[in-house]
Amino acid sequence: MAEMQTATTIEQLRTLVSCAKKSGSKIGFVPTMGALHEGHISLVHEAKKHCDFVVFSIFVNPMQFGPNEDFHRYPRPLQDDLKLCTDAGVNLVFIPSVEEMYPTGFSTVVEVNGLTNNLCGKSRPGHFKGVTTVVMKLFGQVQPDAAYLGQKDAQQALVIKRMARDLDLPIEVVICPTLREADGLAMSSRNRYLSNEQRSVAPLIYKGLCLLKEDVALRKHESSAQYRLDLLKRLEAIPNGVVDYVEIVNADSLEVLEKMNGIVLIAVALKLGNTRLIDNIIINTSA
Amino acid sequence: MAEMQTATTIEQLRTLVSCAKKSGSKIGFVPTMGALHEGHISLVHEAKKHCDFVVFSIFVNPMQFGPNEDFHRYPRPLQDDLKLCTDAGVNLVFIPSVEEMYPTGFSTVVEVNGLTNNLCGKSRPGHFKGVTTVVMKLFGQVQPDAAYLGQKDAQQALVIKRMARDLDLPIEVVICPTLREADGLAMSSRNRYLSNEQRSVAPLIYKGLCLLKEDVALRKHESSAQYRLDLLKRLEAIPNGVVDYVEIVNADSLEVLEKMNGIVLIAVALKLGNTRLIDNIIINTSA
Repeated sequence: MAEMQTATTIEQLRTLVSCAKKSGSKIGFVPTMGALHEGHISLVHEAKKHCDFVVFSIFVNPMQFGPNEDFHRYPRPLQDDLKLCTDAGVNLVFIPSVEEMYPTGFSTVVEVNGLTNNLCGKSRPGHFKGVTTVVMKLFGQVQPDAAYLGQKDAQQALVIKRMARDLDLPIEVVICPTLREADGLAMSSRNRYLSNEQRSVAPLIYKGLCLLKEDVALRKHESSAQYRLDLLKRLEAIPNGVVDYVEIVNADSLEVLEKMNGIVLIAVALKLGNTRLIDNIIINTSA
Repeated sequence: MAEMQTATTIEQLRTLVSCAKKSGSKIGFVPTMGALHEGHISLVHEAKKHCDFVVFSIFVNPMQFGPNEDFHRYPRPLQDDLKLCTDAGVNLVFIPSVEEMYPTGFSTVVEVNGLTNNLCGKSRPGHFKGVTTVVMKLFGQVQPDAAYLGQKDAQQALVIKRMARDLDLPIEVVICPTLREADGLAMSSRNRYLSNEQRSVAPLIYKGLCLLKEDVALRKHESSAQYRLDLLKRLEAIPNGVVDYVEIVNADSLEVLEKMNGIVLIAVALKLGNTRLIDNIIINTSA
């Protein structure tokens, strides 16, 4: 196995990627903010199935954090991350500085409208503008054939997919399943913020989603609003949990649904102390 | 000489461009709105000097026109344009429909801030957002190695160059000199709107710019404001001309200059009847 390469500048990155491209490699790309867990690594495994050369970026992007969010305390365990990348068979890790990504005079933004109006877009103004801008930059830098994103960040994945489609980028955006801990909690870099007590109740988020799914299978209610209310009550019952949103939406358009029709995304965000957790499930109601 | 190819869909375009890329061709790209004149053709000549395969797009982009602008009456002499492209040795002309470029659900915008705040950006709100979005799409579609733009649209060229830099696109943006009629009028698709009377006075725009340049060489004034006032007076003296703006700015940042220092862009916009004409010169004051 060839040794894993690292790049900290765009120029280094370009040189190494063009080298791989010249030898005919299909380039897979996994953009992350580091603080890696098995969910990230599952994206690498998926990329390796379909691509010859996997580029992995670690960049905590200031542009996608709000002024009162956790940019500064976001975990940055770089050595652990590099070890995980090596073990997973990543070919090239890109770790740019903030200055490398946003040099003086930087003034371009990429924005997806519509899809970003609700869910996390509503709770975190400007967040998705930061996400699409940095991902467009990373796409420009890496020029991958395919990019791999996690379903846990459902809205983010859809927004990036829409951006790639709207801007006609020759990049396949692949959305991969959420990985979960044994007790159902969606894997997230932010789980490490949780106290023992918070960690012990956090699986109730996914439990609520699963109960909703069971209720839908039993056709318990007529309207989405009734299912939403059930879930909201269950989440509000989580000790010290503060619900940010609970939404039942079309899984493609993210438009709020009155009935449980088609492919339905149930997405939630909840704060446990200072830690904001998100999770979601998709229900194919016609299946 | 190989026959010129045409594509009306993104898929056709991609197929033909990848074919050229596979054979190792360097791809040059000239984006236009058609109604071609020698200025456009000079961009093709420049592209052919440095590239093996020249893609030329003709698309009157609704997104960059304001509600009261000339989108519908913008000239579309397609057969003449194709003849000019053939004669110039263009390899591939891309002529997408509005539906091909903006399918249902399209919702992404690319925007350059700062640079777009003054000059035409001030007179035409939303104009540059339309320009950068469509050009980013065309870049995504064509994936050129280099793109060729005219200095006549100075702000547009700078904005696109900034976008490509900020988004780390692997595309060289080349800005080519303005071509002029024998009497000095900058070539423009909109010149064909002019009545004989308007056409006869239109060269006074460039004449005003040239007189300013002479005055600068003579160090006539201390401040840029004084040069600007002289030019404004000359332009206001053009029969039936209505000045939109006259600005003396840094040629890179487009920031208004108090003194004639460094590389200076003098940019003007003026309406003759319903026709809005723009022109500019660059003065290197340290030369």
